[in-house]
Amino acid sequence: MKTMRLLVAAPILLFGNAFGQRMVNDVLNYVDPMIGTRRMGHVYPGASAPFGMVQLSPDTDTIPYAVDGKYNGKVYETCSGYQYDDSTIVGFSHTHFSGTGHSDLGDILLMPTAGPLQLNPGTAAAPQSGFRSVFYHANEIAQPGSYYVHLEDHNILAELTATARVGLHRYHFPGRDTVHVILDLVHGIYNHTDKNVWTFVRVENDTLVTGYRQTTGWGRTRTVYFAIAFSEPITHYGQQQDARPTEYRGFWRKFDQTKDFPEMAGKQLRAWFDFDMRDNGKPLLVKVALSSVSTEGALKNMQAEVPHWDFDGVVRETQDAWRQELSRIRVESKRPAVLTNFYTAMYHACLSPTVYMDVDGQYRGLDQNIHTAHGFTNYTTFSLWDTYRALHPLFNIIQRERSSDCVNSMLAHYDQSAHHMLPIWSHHANENWCMIGYHAVSVIADAHVKGITGFDPQHALDACVATAKHRSFEGLGDYIDLGYVPEDKSGASVSKTLEYAYDDRCIQRLAHRIGNKAVELEFIARSESFTQVFDGTTRFMRPRLTDRSFMKEFDPLDTHQKGFIEGNAWNYSLYVPHEPEELADLMGGKKRFGEHLDSLFTMRLDDKYFEKTEDITRDGIMGNYVHGNEPSHHVAFLYNYTDRPWMTGMRTRDVMDLMYRPAPDGLSGNDDCGQMSAWYIFNAMGFYPMEPGSDKYEIGSPILERAEIPLENGKTFTVVAKKQGPKNVYVRSVKLNGETLYRRTITHAEIMAGGVLEFELSAKPPKH
Amino acid sequence: MKTMRLLVAAPILLFGNAFGQRMVNDVLNYVDPMIGTRRMGHVYPGASAPFGMVQLSPDTDTIPYAVDGKYNGKVYETCSGYQYDDSTIVGFSHTHFSGTGHSDLGDILLMPTAGPLQLNPGTAAAPQSGFRSVFYHANEIAQPGSYYVHLEDHNILAELTATARVGLHRYHFPGRDTVHVILDLVHGIYNHTDKNVWTFVRVENDTLVTGYRQTTGWGRTRTVYFAIAFSEPITHYGQQQDARPTEYRGFWRKFDQTKDFPEMAGKQLRAWFDFDMRDNGKPLLVKVALSSVSTEGALKNMQAEVPHWDFDGVVRETQDAWRQELSRIRVESKRPAVLTNFYTAMYHACLSPTVYMDVDGQYRGLDQNIHTAHGFTNYTTFSLWDTYRALHPLFNIIQRERSSDCVNSMLAHYDQSAHHMLPIWSHHANENWCMIGYHAVSVIADAHVKGITGFDPQHALDACVATAKHRSFEGLGDYIDLGYVPEDKSGASVSKTLEYAYDDRCIQRLAHRIGNKAVELEFIARSESFTQVFDGTTRFMRPRLTDRSFMKEFDPLDTHQKGFIEGNAWNYSLYVPHEPEELADLMGGKKRFGEHLDSLFTMRLDDKYFEKTEDITRDGIMGNYVHGNEPSHHVAFLYNYTDRPWMTGMRTRDVMDLMYRPAPDGLSGNDDCGQMSAWYIFNAMGFYPMEPGSDKYEIGSPILERAEIPLENGKTFTVVAKKQGPKNVYVRSVKLNGETLYRRTITHAEIMAGGVLEFELSAKPPKH
Repeated sequence: MKTMRLLVAAPILLFGNAFGQRMVNDVLNYVDPMIGTRRMGHVYPGASAPFGMVQLSPDTDTIPYAVDGKYNGKVYETCSGYQYDDSTIVGFSHTHFSGTGHSDLGDILLMPTAGPLQLNPGTAAAPQSGFRSVFYHANEIAQPGSYYVHLEDHNILAELTATARVGLHRYHFPGRDTVHVILDLVHGIYNHTDKNVWTFVRVENDTLVTGYRQTTGWGRTRTVYFAIAFSEPITHYGQQQDARPTEYRGFWRKFDQTKDFPEMAGKQLRAWFDFDMRDNGKPLLVKVALSSVSTEGALKNMQAEVPHWDFDGVVRETQDAWRQELSRIRVESKRPAVLTNFYTAMYHACLSPTVYMDVDGQYRGLDQNIHTAHGFTNYTTFSLWDTYRALHPLFNIIQRERSSDCVNSMLAHYDQSAHHMLPIWSHHANENWCMIGYHAVSVIADAHVKGITGFDPQHALDACVATAKHRSFEGLGDYIDLGYVPEDKSGASVSKTLEYAYDDRCIQRLAHRIGNKAVELEFIARSESFTQVFDGTTRFMRPRLTDRSFMKEFDPLDTHQKGFIEGNAWNYSLYVPHEPEELADLMGGKKRFGEHLDSLFTMRLDDKYFEKTEDITRDGIMGNYVHGNEPSHHVAFLYNYTDRPWMTGMRTRDVMDLMYRPAPDGLSGNDDCGQMSAWYIFNAMGFYPMEPGSDKYEIGSPILERAEIPLENGKTFTVVAKKQGPKNVYVRSVKLNGETLYRRTITHAEIMAGGVLEFELSAKPPKH
Repeated sequence: MKTMRLLVAAPILLFGNAFGQRMVNDVLNYVDPMIGTRRMGHVYPGASAPFGMVQLSPDTDTIPYAVDGKYNGKVYETCSGYQYDDSTIVGFSHTHFSGTGHSDLGDILLMPTAGPLQLNPGTAAAPQSGFRSVFYHANEIAQPGSYYVHLEDHNILAELTATARVGLHRYHFPGRDTVHVILDLVHGIYNHTDKNVWTFVRVENDTLVTGYRQTTGWGRTRTVYFAIAFSEPITHYGQQQDARPTEYRGFWRKFDQTKDFPEMAGKQLRAWFDFDMRDNGKPLLVKVALSSVSTEGALKNMQAEVPHWDFDGVVRETQDAWRQELSRIRVESKRPAVLTNFYTAMYHACLSPTVYMDVDGQYRGLDQNIHTAHGFTNYTTFSLWDTYRALHPLFNIIQRERSSDCVNSMLAHYDQSAHHMLPIWSHHANENWCMIGYHAVSVIADAHVKGITGFDPQHALDACVATAKHRSFEGLGDYIDLGYVPEDKSGASVSKTLEYAYDDRCIQRLAHRIGNKAVELEFIARSESFTQVFDGTTRFMRPRLTDRSFMKEFDPLDTHQKGFIEGNAWNYSLYVPHEPEELADLMGGKKRFGEHLDSLFTMRLDDKYFEKTEDITRDGIMGNYVHGNEPSHHVAFLYNYTDRPWMTGMRTRDVMDLMYRPAPDGLSGNDDCGQMSAWYIFNAMGFYPMEPGSDKYEIGSPILERAEIPLENGKTFTVVAKKQGPKNVYVRSVKLNGETLYRRTITHAEIMAGGVLEFELSAKPPKH
């Protein structure tokens, strides 16, 4: 392995001084994109503009094929393409999910190399066997909008930045003459042997390459078009195909198709491009624009967003964009770790959903036809089972236009859906059907309740109702007929029943606002379905069969207990966000409910249960409370419906302190497209939308000293925490605009009116 | 096997009286689409509008996989999907080549069935094992624009017709209740195991299905979009995937994806649709619209061309379109066989090239992006090595606007080509690189010489020159440097050298007309390259090596002789259409040249040579003259450059009589997208464009009594054959507008001026 050599001036400055030269009070200083890159966070450290279509990030391993499509641990770890503990980088690809628990993407991987041309990636154990390179975290910087790494094996400094639709690379090759750029279209994330459907590459001229990559994976029918421009002329180029070659199938060979043949296509294709950097001293710059529409669309995007070769200019422009997004909440804390946690959470909350249209508004729809977004920006990457909880509600305060765009994007999805359904989990013109419920209705209802405009409420209600009445979807027919999903008909039946019931309350609320009585009555009834799966004997929600009997086998701590998904019965039994009082009643009243919650947070979960739990680390568990996955995200606020409401603050402060840390492994579970981060953002300010679709926020306990939200209506909502301190986790009193609050909630209208929410904190709980 | 039962009124009428009821003098009566469907003709009998994008035709076999992509005899036989001697029909697919010698297409196969649902096609030996059906030619009618067949196994009468972009099916199910329509997207022509790249199907509502089929075959990256509308509601539907299923790859099953699941996708997909025809008595109609752009484009095409369910109306409309095209030459003959041959040739000459754009002018280009044809109709299926010879020249007389469209389509191809080349053999947004030369330049030069307008001549010349200077293409660099293609560098070197030389003369002529002296001088020199491969010792064209020596191994009769392709050295040595006098000189003068040609037509070709010859039947050979393939198509006219020019007429009349017969096996070789037919059309009128790109036509001997060409300029050019008779094959005299012609050519200007070309024929040659 070579020792590190940094021969050119720029990188020395960079690595030596980048952090030292940071501006005081620059909010960017408080973002560390490396947080969550180790173990379960599943975020990527690379360069992206806020909500950008391009996520240009290093991939640390060619994902081992999951043979026969089988789920594979390594595949899971590298959902974002990057794992902090990996020692090599395979290259830089242009699409990544942030924080997901399943994966796809990793499209259009570029890798700069020097020395003999190598066309296979090699292995992490023997990086010299391929084009990959060893890297050290000491020679790596990740910042909002840019990423820098020294590729040790090739002695290349690679710098990355991005606009919304264009990734920009700058490679320094000190002392090298002929260098290569590998375009690896075999590479992908969660690749399995037949994931690659087709790839198509054209060398348009000596500085421009176009093409597309088409895959079948989590997104079943997915195509990414690209245009790649180089700042120096290509001297020679060629291809290697792993699988069966797809030369032109004439009866004889017309050309040498392996070299300087400008049209390449096939299922497993890697191309290479050579550049003569002798006596040049200049870096090689590469622009990669993406499109869902066509290579023509990618070129349009490139010309519109990066018509020049000013790498540093793009870095500045994207940093400015980040400053704008991150400054939508201005906070103060004496604890640097809290500031870093907060702004890193803000950063992660602005990576998804992602823009999914070209600069001219064209995008590929679910029907694989090209559509134009009229009057809105089209987004994709809707991890709705996660993000309906806090991320979309956060947008309804600080990203209100984007929230409208999200609703319109989901309605366009509905319009294009052969199922006539709103998205469940959608990305890149595909419904991937991941997880349960139809939580798009929650996002839509929450937006409408919170005054988001720019979409047609009647159309939205129609879409919600059509989705909620799709009888063949996941036990919905039985749910409608019986009042619950029977486990013998559709698995995870209790989780589904509970989430449908909540979603149905959202539809009822929307119908109420629009004045549709019939729909309101229908869905208010449906929203009570949680009572149907409550087992009064065990006081847990419990799977029921078609004959209405409860399932015999039942262990509320087992995460593999039938009837549930991604959470055990103990946790899921608390999922009635729209009727917490009724839940408390079912659980035996306020006092008993409080004790029940105490036991959740304090029990010792036997290892036999934990071992089966995925998506979270041991750090993500507190007793049997699993913060590393979403079904518990509302649980702490249920204390507000017990006789000890101050425990909400105590628990949320505990979670913030223990489960969000400014370190690569600082996220205790998947960030899930910003949901985990949005939870932190709300709670750091001391309130949380336990029931999206309603106008209420539960009061918690802020970890910040002060937070100001400069609202889009010109007003400012300010949170002040008096007597803040690491141990002062209990809320003594809350005042809104000077008036003491005798409730445990505030309303959206109160936030939007501006004003001051003042907490007084204490190390001790109030007298009980 | 069931006996034939025709239970409904319409088919009885059809089968009983269709021919009897034909109108007297209806030109359609003289077309028999079955001619050429047996053995080597490779035409399809199904329904197409003139030059239509849709070719809706029965496929008589699921093409056996060519294992490992290997060339397979059965694959070759079924190039058009149909072989007359096959006993079963697998279904009706919507794209077919007419007469080609290599294949692709067969997209979007529909098969109506009754009885138990069967989802595999079964085998020809055991048709009951699958959905295919036995059929009898007695219960089959093929007419221009429509096709009717009784599917014996299912007792279904299937009727097909088509507009340019829409195929229309009408199925009669006498006495059946639940019936099925199979949509087989696995099926294709020249299918090999990994030809199918992706298929995508959406059931939009209970009468509309959309989707696409993407393949890699002769066309490497090819996609056909479709929209299918049914006249009755689908009751249930589903899919079966042969290969690995491509269910949604979530962690669990959301739906039953095999039945009533409206979005299907995968690599090997067959879908089925059920219809309840009980108490109905109505036929089921199915409209299938195609597009290269999108399913939206296919729907637009359907709405524009067949907005109704009037099957008979479409038949009438398409028949009228055919009458118009076929009437572009009006002929008389006392011999019905000649009329049938002539109008069937006219029919075959109007099947290719095919329209390749939607009704709004959008089409998929070579770059796989969507383009719009501004000011022209975009065509594809350019089998140029064949069709430059006579088909495109024919268009320059009777299809002048289409000729302009063809030139513009080829220039668009050039503009989109990553190689910056004109098409070689192109279809469906793909260059398939089949055969040699760059004969698009001949088509362009011929069009310009013959006064075709509507394209930019300068742009055309640039395209021709860029194509002819693409050094890495097929030995062109060496050809430019050495004056010939050396066999040790690039195979088929003599064939290439000869064809390049001819093509270069076309470029010279075009440059001359535009006034570009430099290009003219460069290409006049290149056009003499045929002299470089002439071996004075053997008096044959003979492969040369880089060191200028002639190749030692040389057998001029062997079709596998190195240096040649699709023709032996004997035949290919005559390929100097642009310098026939010089060729005669090289061959030892006019007399000797004539004797040389005599020996060609009269020698007995040893079986050992014939056995290796493909693309033709024994009927396609006359001595060593191989009419069944194109390199000989100009040969008979070389007699005009001997001391016995009347032999041209004698030979061409022989070929017309022996090698064009009104029978299923009546074509002696592949029709090659109309080239074989265009040869007949010209020769039936007594003249032929031996050297496209020049303004001359060689005089032959008409087989007709009279031919009238109502020219687009309002004039009429008439051919009259006096003393016509089967044995009167020799031309005694030729008069143009009453003046005796003392030359063996007429010019294009003379044709376009209108007038009468009068032949006097005789059973005996003139005195020698």
